[in-house]
Parts: sequence; C-alpha cells; structure tokens
Amino acid sequence: MRFLHSADWHLGRVYHGVSLLEDQDHALQQFVRIAADTRPDAVLLAGDIYDRSVPPAEALRLLDRVLEQLVLGLRIPVVMIAGNHDGPDRLAFGSGLLQRAGLLVRGPVEWAAAPLVLNDAHGEVEIHALPYAEPALVRSVSGDDTVTDHHAALAAQTAAVRAARAPGRRVVVVAHAFVQGGAESESERPLSVGGTGAVGAEVFAGFDYVALGHLHRAQQVGEARIQYAGSLLKYAFSEADQRKSVTLVELDGAGVCSVERIALTPRRDLRIVEGTLEAIVAAAASDPARDDYLLARLTDSGALLDAMGKLRTAYPNALAIERPVLTGDGPGRAHADHRRTRIQDLFASFHRDTTGLALEPAAQAALERIVDRIELEARSA
Amino acid sequence: MRFLHSADWHLGRVYHGVSLLEDQDHALQQFVRIAADTRPDAVLLAGDIYDRSVPPAEALRLLDRVLEQLVLGLRIPVVMIAGNHDGPDRLAFGSGLLQRAGLLVRGPVEWAAAPLVLNDAHGEVEIHALPYAEPALVRSVSGDDTVTDHHAALAAQTAAVRAARAPGRRVVVVAHAFVQGGAESESERPLSVGGTGAVGAEVFAGFDYVALGHLHRAQQVGEARIQYAGSLLKYAFSEADQRKSVTLVELDGAGVCSVERIALTPRRDLRIVEGTLEAIVAAAASDPARDDYLLARLTDSGALLDAMGKLRTAYPNALAIERPVLTGDGPGRAHADHRRTRIQDLFASFHRDTTGLALEPAAQAALERIVDRIELEARSA
Repeated sequence: MRFLHSADWHLGRVYHGVSLLEDQDHALQQFVRIAADTRPDAVLLAGDIYDRSVPPAEALRLLDRVLEQLVLGLRIPVVMIAGNHDGPDRLAFGSGLLQRAGLLVRGPVEWAAAPLVLNDAHGEVEIHALPYAEPALVRSVSGDDTVTDHHAALAAQTAAVRAARAPGRRVVVVAHAFVQGGAESESERPLSVGGTGAVGAEVFAGFDYVALGHLHRAQQVGEARIQYAGSLLKYAFSEADQRKSVTLVELDGAGVCSVERIALTPRRDLRIVEGTLEAIVAAAASDPARDDYLLARLTDSGALLDAMGKLRTAYPNALAIERPVLTGDGPGRAHADHRRTRIQDLFASFHRDTTGLALEPAAQAALERIVDRIELEARSA
Repeated sequence: MRFLHSADWHLGRVYHGVSLLEDQDHALQQFVRIAADTRPDAVLLAGDIYDRSVPPAEALRLLDRVLEQLVLGLRIPVVMIAGNHDGPDRLAFGSGLLQRAGLLVRGPVEWAAAPLVLNDAHGEVEIHALPYAEPALVRSVSGDDTVTDHHAALAAQTAAVRAARAPGRRVVVVAHAFVQGGAESESERPLSVGGTGAVGAEVFAGFDYVALGHLHRAQQVGEARIQYAGSLLKYAFSEADQRKSVTLVELDGAGVCSVERIALTPRRDLRIVEGTLEAIVAAAASDPARDDYLLARLTDSGALLDAMGKLRTAYPNALAIERPVLTGDGPGRAHADHRRTRIQDLFASFHRDTTGLALEPAAQAALERIVDRIELEARSA
C-alpha cells in the first residue's frame, strides 16, 4: 500500500509582512501532480493545515481546490487532522458529509473514532487519525486523570487505537506532536509554554507507519516507520538550508515501510546571502533567482542609509537584513538585539560608525550622566 | 414535489448581549423533526445561515449537526445559499465534496452553475441556487456593464437561469433579496447603504417556486409562488407579534404551488410587557413563561432605582427596558433618544421626576447660562 504524507502547510501564513499564499498554491500544484504521478492509496495530512484557527478566506479557497483535485479529480482518499495551529471545529466542519465523499477530517479529539480501512493485495490497513489536542482536553474526553502532559495524552490516544484495532490488520497512525529526538526548526510554535511538550516514540509501539506533523524539517525519528514529512515551504530563514519535500511511503504486506522524499520546488526560494550591501547588489545582476525571499546578512561595518531600499532595487522580495558586525554576534536576530542593548552603548556604536572614532572617556561619562537623568525622570513621571 | 423552505437562521446571533445559540438549537431540533415528519424532496435554505461572515465555532458545530441529520440521517438533499450576512467562501468550503454527499452549497456567485435536478411522478424539477452578491460582483462575474443595482444583478442572474433551463422542467429558484412589496422587520441589515436594494418581483417570471430569504417576516410577495420563509427566531422586539415558522411547499405536476406554514415553538419567546414596574413584577408570579426574553415598557412616571435589577428578579432573561413617558413618545428607542436630548431638558426632566415640580423660570435661566459656559469652554479646550 502506498501513501503520500505531508504536513504543516500553514496556509495563510504571513512572513515578514508578506502573504505566502501564492507560494503555497505553487507548491500545492506540485503536490497534486506528485499525487497524480505516484497514485497513492491515500494522502495523509498530519496537521497545521492552516496557520491559524481563523484563516483568511483565500486560504480556505486554496485548500478547497486542492482537496477537490485530490478527492474528486484523482479519487484518492485524504486523511487530514488538526494541528496545534488549526481551529479544530472550523477544520472539521462538514466532516460527516465529507467522509462520504472520500475526505476523512478529524478536528476535535474523539474517543475510539472509527479508522479508515483500505485494502491491498496483502489485506486490510487501518488508518487512525489522531488530531492534536491539549492534555487537559484529552483528560476530559478520555476520563483518564493521569493525563497531565502531551506524552500521556498521546499515549492514551494510541493505547485506545491498540485496543480497538482489528488483529491481523496493518495500522497507520496520523498524528501531530513533538516526538522526542526530533530536530526543531524556528518556525514551529511550541506545544507547551515552559516545556517541550515532547512525546516518547514508544507511544507508537506496534504501528506500521506513523505519519507525523509539527516539526518542519522532514526527518525520521529513530525508525523508518516514524516520519515527519516536514513543512510545505521554508517558513523561517533558519530553514534556509532545508530541502522541502513530500514523503512517499510504501508499506509492504509484512508491514515494512520504505520511504522516499519527493522534492518540492518553491515558487520563490527563501535564502540567506552574505556580503557587503554593494557586493550583494552588484552580484544580483548575474543572479537568476532575484525574486527569491532574501535575508541579507550585511558585513558592512559603517552606517548604511536605506539599506533595505537599496537591497530591494536588486532583490524586490528581500524580507530582512541582519548586521552581525553591529550586534557583535554572528547569525541571529540583529534587530531584536538592538532593543536589549543599553542606549549608551547604542550611542557609542553609532558614534563609532559615523565618525570612525571611539567615544572619549569624558564624553562617555557625560553620556552616562545624561542617560541616567533621563531614565530617572522617566521612571518618576 | 415537496420542499421544506427556511431562511435567516442567523446562527451565532447575539441580541442585547445574550447568545441565542441554545434557542437556535432548540428551534432547529424542531426543524429536523418537521423534516422527518413531512419528508420533503429537498430542504431549501435561502441565506443568512450565519449572523456574520466569521461565525463562532459553536455556530459551525450546530449547523454541521443539523446538516448531518438532514442529509445523512434523513437522506434529504439540502440546497443552501449565502445571504448578505454570510461569508461566501467560508460558507461554501468543501462544496464540491459536499455536493456528492447531498448538500448543495453556493457561496460565491457563479455564472450558469448547474442546478440540482430532482424527479417526481410528473417529471423533473431544476433547483437553481443564487447566492446573495453585491451588484459590482455580479457585474464583474457576468461581464454585464448595465448591472449597477440589486434589481439588475438579480435580473441578470435569473435571465441566465431562464437561458439555461431545460424546456419542460419545472424550475425552483433559491435567492436572498429584498423583493419590492415585502414587509421589512427591524432585525434585517439593509442591502444597500442609502437605498432599499429592492428587486422587482418580475425578475422571477417563469419560475414555479421562488424560495426567498432576507425578510424576517414569513410572507408571500404578490403570488403564492414567491415566498419568504421568515427567520428561525424573533430577532428583534419589533418582531414580537410575529409567529415564526417554516414553509412547506407542494409543487404539483402543472407547476402550481400550495404553501403551508408550520409553526416553530421557541425555547424562550421574545415579547413585550407593559405596565408599572411594580405591576409587572407582581404579575410575574402567575406568568408561566418567566424565562422569556422581555422588553418591559414601563409606564412609571417617576424615577426608578435599578429597574433592570428589579425586573430580573421576576424575569431573569429580561433584555431591555423602555420608558415611553420619559422620552415623550410611545414605542421606540427610549435610550437612544436620551443622547439627542439637550442637557438642560434632561436636567429639567430629572428635576421633575425626583421632586415632582417643574424648574422655576429663574432656575431654568441659571441652568441655561451654566450649560452654555461649560459647552463654550469644552469647545475652546
């Protein structure tokens, strides 16, 4: 049996003020073509379909079109669960009716919901869809008071699957979780405040394939049968080195998986360039991908006037600039760090950048006194 | 052929700060029972399904449950269109898939969309679903530059239906519009700013039944074949005298309609009581419907302390109070009018209410001078 596994589409996502909907549309057109070429028995979508619980109408339209192409056009059943970004009720609207047409959606967590059962030459396969749910919700739905964290919540859900499964059938589980040992990316929203929300891989014992969503890097966790498909697009610059893909899974009669990643080509890549502003702008002339989403890491040490304006004459979709020299550290969050820098140090750095000279000790002392007085007045105001 | 026609459910509506979702649930349970008893060939829902374009998740859940009961439970096809309150894209999500399960939803306006075709002993019936759309949108979708108002917009849509209909078939149209001659209620949102948005009934020439939504009073417009089903509940006190119902339509082989209204019993009625506060509270003891939503029209002439608090000891779901004596007019908008009253007159009225005496001319003159000075200073500040 063959599955096409994907996750973390985050439809409607806005990054650095830019809507990625056209990029998502572009990648999903490839997804539909890959489905048409590989003819899977089912498509598995492991959550974070939308970027937020009330997505923009355009995101709904896009998902609607893709699901129609898969389910009505290609006649491939789709199993889709809510992730931590999705609104479970909104995602699951019409699910009873949609299931009759070949789309199994699980939004709110349900106890012992019936699996989708598919057949191949080797027998039957059960596909269990386990939507993301807060531990407190699983505790209340299951009536199991020991459910206090994500691990216990998913353990309870998968134990229910094991109890309900028919003997002899192969079992596939679709889930949205942070499984211990997985590598995080910057664009995931943590599942717990003040904790990892991590789940031990042992909760998936006995299942033949586990189609995961949540982590944005495609990866297997321990064994080949436990896979993250990764996100549809690069959703943060820290993912610039990742290659996004969909995961094609072959499950044989003995329940052994072989997994292939099929690359997606983005409409515009999201990448990082490094150098002086002048050098980057000059090199752009021979860059065939000037429409890409860019983070420019500028090595210039002096002041730069309207750096973003200049950068965008060469790269119209440049999204951000970093100045590692100014922040004194390498990669990271240049602009955010400005806010944590003392105003005295910011001024000294500005003075150095514009005049090329360090502040003299007397000037430095005067500056400290002035800032102290201003801050004192501000506090007592 | 038999239809059950309803409209203007406004799911998720909040009235005077109270969510009507439980009331809507109560009425819709009756709706489902009526459908089970009368076994229509189709249910026609003529728009304003939700009260706003992004309804609360609970409203989605309620609609989802009702549609499942109708379509999956009772196997009655449902035809549903967007009204002016609905978000067309959100309402129509999954429509391609849902149609295969027996639910035809039209959100965005489409040109020459295929009708639902049903059969009875007399032949075929085409049901055309025409969602509400702004004239500018119809102009752009149809390419017809003469579409500048609602009349022209619906005329263009119905002309397209006439052009596409198969000869010999009876034709039913579901639409959401203000048809000229219809009686308005207070709880409808006008379709045009600064105009009625009215449509002449002649746009429906040649159709055997026209299932309308928008006006909240159940009514026929001219002929029996053009009907508003009215809203699910009373959505304003000005509708207190209305009896809400669903409309059962029998369409015979010759295309002649007979129409029956089947009453809905609200969970709590919405009504107006009149009298002194004391008399109303006293009479409540023998009132079997003290949970009703109440507007109390108080005839007391003097000042009342915490009138709402006292009223709610007798009627816990009282929503509003009117004091016709204070505003000097009968039914209407007591509180709104306070804001339009000059502060001098408000004070004089307060003085009269509390002391029983009119302001003396000297006091009145002093008051005028004081208010003038305050207003002058406020303007120059």
